[in-house]
Amino acid sequence: MRIDIISGVPALLDGPLNHSIVKRAIDKNLVEIYVHDLRDYTEDKHKKIDDYPYGGDPGMVLTPQPIFSCIEHLTSQREYDELIFTAADGEVFDQPAANALSLKKNILILCGHYKGVDQRVRDELITKEYTIGDYVLSGGELPAMVITDAIVRLLPGAIGDAGSALNDSFQDGLLEAPVYTRPSEFKGLKVPAVLRSGDPKKINAWQQEQSIKRTKERRKDLYENYKKEY
Amino acid sequence: MRIDIISGVPALLDGPLNHSIVKRAIDKNLVEIYVHDLRDYTEDKHKKIDDYPYGGDPGMVLTPQPIFSCIEHLTSQREYDELIFTAADGEVFDQPAANALSLKKNILILCGHYKGVDQRVRDELITKEYTIGDYVLSGGELPAMVITDAIVRLLPGAIGDAGSALNDSFQDGLLEAPVYTRPSEFKGLKVPAVLRSGDPKKINAWQQEQSIKRTKERRKDLYENYKKEY
Repeated sequence: MRIDIISGVPALLDGPLNHSIVKRAIDKNLVEIYVHDLRDYTEDKHKKIDDYPYGGDPGMVLTPQPIFSCIEHLTSQREYDELIFTAADGEVFDQPAANALSLKKNILILCGHYKGVDQRVRDELITKEYTIGDYVLSGGELPAMVITDAIVRLLPGAIGDAGSALNDSFQDGLLEAPVYTRPSEFKGLKVPAVLRSGDPKKINAWQQEQSIKRTKERRKDLYENYKKEY
Repeated sequence: MRIDIISGVPALLDGPLNHSIVKRAIDKNLVEIYVHDLRDYTEDKHKKIDDYPYGGDPGMVLTPQPIFSCIEHLTSQREYDELIFTAADGEVFDQPAANALSLKKNILILCGHYKGVDQRVRDELITKEYTIGDYVLSGGELPAMVITDAIVRLLPGAIGDAGSALNDSFQDGLLEAPVYTRPSEFKGLKVPAVLRSGDPKKINAWQQEQSIKRTKERRKDLYENYKKEY
């Protein structure tokens, strides 16, 4: 799999792409990730990539030229399955979306800018627009990293333990049961006896019960969907 | 405002905290951000901070000792308004949550681990649990940065233009209207005439209309809430 990320502030992408699971997946050749600096594509003599919006509103908007040049350059070299734009007003990114994207070959992510990009870019070039949640961020770099991380960890081999991604929260529509690790007693607080019982059937039943209970208490919306499907 | 972030992989936090709006807010003394490495607090002789979960599931879970030690150290020095944990099964983080947190004095964020932390930490120490969306990530560092970014950009003075944060998507419950910048014509694609009219009344009316239209088309859930309130 190949992921191209286009950003006006590529330094923001440094940490998350160079450590932990994403880095490990790159090292194992499970994914190639390329970051492109919009400033390398601007024809403006001051290297500008944004400008005032029409209509007199505050904030700056990414101009069409550098983005068109960058995307045209990349799409002339290979076909992309999806050209994604991260935007507060996009479709809601969720686990099924991550699952679907993890099966693609080439993905391009254009990082939004908090006041947006020229609408002509979205109309002409973009095939998918995603928001990662209902809050405003200062740029699309964090959303691009969130999408990348959610995808990459699903690639076979990315997580040491193959069973691990399957029993995640959301994969079965339920939140996960509480987890505990050693020591069995810490500051007088004990791990529930059932988890220390060594009886897989009892443990499973407890986890399923806790999972349903937690979902019902915390996320009525997910619980209603779960009830419909099961 | 002061934000303390506790992480097992602090290098992940490098880029986003050292560039762009968050960095600028730090330089302007609007916010102090301190990152704490869990490994500095472990009493394990191999510097381990995680262990196998009880119950035989795959994946590793953050152990209670280093987290208790770190949080007890920090809370002995100052009072925190909120001790936040980033978790897939937390409350949904949204713009009203960001607005509320931006008014606090001291916030602590414990980065989750994708298989979770020992439940005793959550039960005993944490006052708020947030998920940034319904997808699984490899760690809580990206969510911690998302929450930090969403808060910091709301601090007075963080964004150059004071009017800018107020007409964001979500602040009035609607998505924003399309934005355009120069040139007025690019590859034959024109900026809508109304935006170039110079008539603020017409422009406002068009933006409001587009904003409602976009919300109705893309986010039925937000549109229904908006109708109820206005």
